[in-house]
Amino acid sequence: MHVQNSAHIGVTGLAVMGRNLARNLARHGHRVALHNRSAARTSALMAEFGHEGAFVPTETMEQFVAALERPRRIVVMVKAGGPTDAVIEELVPLLEPGDIVVDGGNAHFLDTRRREAALREHGLHFVGTGISGGEEGALEGPSIMPGGTPEAYAILGPLLESIAAKVDGRPCCTHVGPDGAGHFVKMVHNGIEYADMQLIAEAYDLLRHGAGRQPGDIAQIFRGWNEGRLESYLIEITAEVLGHGDPLTGHPFVDVVEDRAEQKGTGRWTVQTALELGVPVSGIAEAVFARSLSGSAALREAARGLPGPSETWLDSAAADRFAGDVEQALYASKIVAYAQGFHQIQAGSAEYGWQIDRGAMASIWRGGCIIRARFLSRIDAAYRADPELPTLLTDDHFREALGAAQSAWRRVVSTAAQLGVPVPGFSSALAYYDALRADRLPAALVQGQRDFFGAHTYRRTDRAGSFHTLWGGDRSEQER
Amino acid sequence: MHVQNSAHIGVTGLAVMGRNLARNLARHGHRVALHNRSAARTSALMAEFGHEGAFVPTETMEQFVAALERPRRIVVMVKAGGPTDAVIEELVPLLEPGDIVVDGGNAHFLDTRRREAALREHGLHFVGTGISGGEEGALEGPSIMPGGTPEAYAILGPLLESIAAKVDGRPCCTHVGPDGAGHFVKMVHNGIEYADMQLIAEAYDLLRHGAGRQPGDIAQIFRGWNEGRLESYLIEITAEVLGHGDPLTGHPFVDVVEDRAEQKGTGRWTVQTALELGVPVSGIAEAVFARSLSGSAALREAARGLPGPSETWLDSAAADRFAGDVEQALYASKIVAYAQGFHQIQAGSAEYGWQIDRGAMASIWRGGCIIRARFLSRIDAAYRADPELPTLLTDDHFREALGAAQSAWRRVVSTAAQLGVPVPGFSSALAYYDALRADRLPAALVQGQRDFFGAHTYRRTDRAGSFHTLWGGDRSEQER
Repeated sequence: MHVQNSAHIGVTGLAVMGRNLARNLARHGHRVALHNRSAARTSALMAEFGHEGAFVPTETMEQFVAALERPRRIVVMVKAGGPTDAVIEELVPLLEPGDIVVDGGNAHFLDTRRREAALREHGLHFVGTGISGGEEGALEGPSIMPGGTPEAYAILGPLLESIAAKVDGRPCCTHVGPDGAGHFVKMVHNGIEYADMQLIAEAYDLLRHGAGRQPGDIAQIFRGWNEGRLESYLIEITAEVLGHGDPLTGHPFVDVVEDRAEQKGTGRWTVQTALELGVPVSGIAEAVFARSLSGSAALREAARGLPGPSETWLDSAAADRFAGDVEQALYASKIVAYAQGFHQIQAGSAEYGWQIDRGAMASIWRGGCIIRARFLSRIDAAYRADPELPTLLTDDHFREALGAAQSAWRRVVSTAAQLGVPVPGFSSALAYYDALRADRLPAALVQGQRDFFGAHTYRRTDRAGSFHTLWGGDRSEQER
Repeated sequence: MHVQNSAHIGVTGLAVMGRNLARNLARHGHRVALHNRSAARTSALMAEFGHEGAFVPTETMEQFVAALERPRRIVVMVKAGGPTDAVIEELVPLLEPGDIVVDGGNAHFLDTRRREAALREHGLHFVGTGISGGEEGALEGPSIMPGGTPEAYAILGPLLESIAAKVDGRPCCTHVGPDGAGHFVKMVHNGIEYADMQLIAEAYDLLRHGAGRQPGDIAQIFRGWNEGRLESYLIEITAEVLGHGDPLTGHPFVDVVEDRAEQKGTGRWTVQTALELGVPVSGIAEAVFARSLSGSAALREAARGLPGPSETWLDSAAADRFAGDVEQALYASKIVAYAQGFHQIQAGSAEYGWQIDRGAMASIWRGGCIIRARFLSRIDAAYRADPELPTLLTDDHFREALGAAQSAWRRVVSTAAQLGVPVPGFSSALAYYDALRADRLPAALVQGQRDFFGAHTYRRTDRAGSFHTLWGGDRSEQER
């Protein structure tokens, strides 16, 4: 099996994601060199799945590199951060100009920019690649978001496209843009995923604690929604989770799970990066904070029993109508969450000169990844109709949907406030919508305050220039 | 004037903040050595204000250092970032063990930690110090938040306390804690300031665009509020700004100011740091994002004319009652904003081992700084009653205020949603309140979703351990 220069692609790092990606490649007819720091994982893969395709197992990094045809295509699937740098450091002296190193982990896009620049110095291509879909996606067809040079994509792309999820016959993989663009887009994907999950959770909470429905009934409602415009993987699995009974107690599964949501950090990165870029991603931020809050045990313990409203349930007639309103609120809020995420992609693309095709991003998210949804075809269509669309909210389809949804959306936010059900996602989405469409914002007052206490100056609506009012003096205005 | 070793303290960097701080020190009887990169500023200060006290002007860094008694107290008032590092680098070789370098700029607390560690290696004290109150505060008495060692504070503190604002005879200055603690607390102060300003802006917007009041009438309402529990510098200047007429056009000033709020970065740092610490500061985040949104010109231009509600004004009877409700909502939301900020101080203190006395922070913010307010005495009292209070919301006074305010607060959020007035601050504060007091959060559903698509496991309410359900299999549960 140790044929020199024979493997089309290599995978180093054979934990579950790397193993499944290697199997996916082999199943698609590619000869795959295998390497792992400890050889046991390589042997285990060969023993269990060696029959699935043409694998070239190797024990040392030198053997691994030697097994690959040139230019070499090497996929690194190790932990983000130090471990990734360590593998790259080991690889680089063994490679030759034109070889391609792919980082398929969840790296921060700024690390990817740094690594791409460093490898470019050696004449090597570095392709930071977002891969979404979890373990199953890696094996069965993920959504793949590769950055790096067009030259690298020309050599690498066909292999990645062959193993990606397919929707309408098109692969969920395309060249995102230079250097860190792929990991940036993957990061925003995850941020949107946080927001989407939070909105779904709020819809459930409203039906449960506002309308008094039981988890099994709510599962049915979600199954219904999954037949319509909300059709998506997340809605589908929400119905599954809500419909599941705990084998141990017989209670609804969702009632035996501790209500502290965990996170692995990409949602946080999305918000931190949006703050750098000056992009308001309030829905993603509220989702990240909702998870932090759920895990703030000492605060929640202390706050239990703080006064709430006297009426906490809808009457039964209102409860019957409520599911329809919640569907409208969920759809409208979801449009806002995606509009914020795509605004961030636009801003990142402008900041780093990536020229990302936003429609193409929506397109490759239609399959393989966690946020896959019918809805994404609408976003793809919106950007195809106008590649420079400033915000998704103003696309004809979404504008119409928002117009039709807004009364129900307002009723839901209003009802939640009255009943004491927390809806940070729904209400921040509505506030974003109302702020963006406002003729005048009270930001003018904020500028006045800032000029008063810090002489930070302001602009006028009727004249160019920066101005300061002598607040402590005769209150005349100076041009600054 | 060039008496060697005679000055009690030195200030290098004589732009407006440094100049005013030096004058404040001299006015309080301290002999102040002066230095600026270009000597023109030093001469200008001497020419204009030399009569105010005992100044020792110097031209070179060597002369400046030589002019100071030992251990030297040197206040650096230059731009944060590179310029601060450059001055420190120039200073260090000229200093002797035990000397104290004070950074009074708006440094990031992580930079302060780095600098403190570096100077400690040289036997020098580095005191990162938050100074709030703007130009006027620096001259007349700011709120001062010094970090660094207790040894440094013993030598430096009396001078700083002498020039700080005083409230009830107590100086608005105290030793915050080691290394970066001072700049951390100043950062959170600024984050709270953003939130407070946003809430005030929303209150104005509701009275203007919900209740149909004119700026002059709203100024009167704010003057009334400033007689009660909301009494604060920000409410006071809001009334001034709203009551001001533009000399040029005769229109209300607030109507001629462009409605794009700017920011200088400390609000963003507060949110980014809170994300690292896992502290939900949703109110501060919404305030930062509201400013970004107001400046998103292309999006706002495109979104103008998106559909809004048909009813956009309160009827006149409701409008008359509305100001009282808004005052309640503002007070309740303000409690939440401060609770979030103090949670962040608690978390930062725990993370970095600073042992910050939260009550003392509230106490030194009562004067000198932008958020100075009667309200802060309540916070001080809350932490004096229970230094380990998990959240301000559960202090007896605040619990009672929230209980009394909540109906009005809910009406205001509900009304804003119905009328289409954006209230991201009010509504996120209410969502935080309702989430924190909830018995069960839909975070349980989120954990179920995460286990379904990523095998991330969950905890159970009834048994210890981590569990995974075989969602793709027979749906039995495994302990992990």
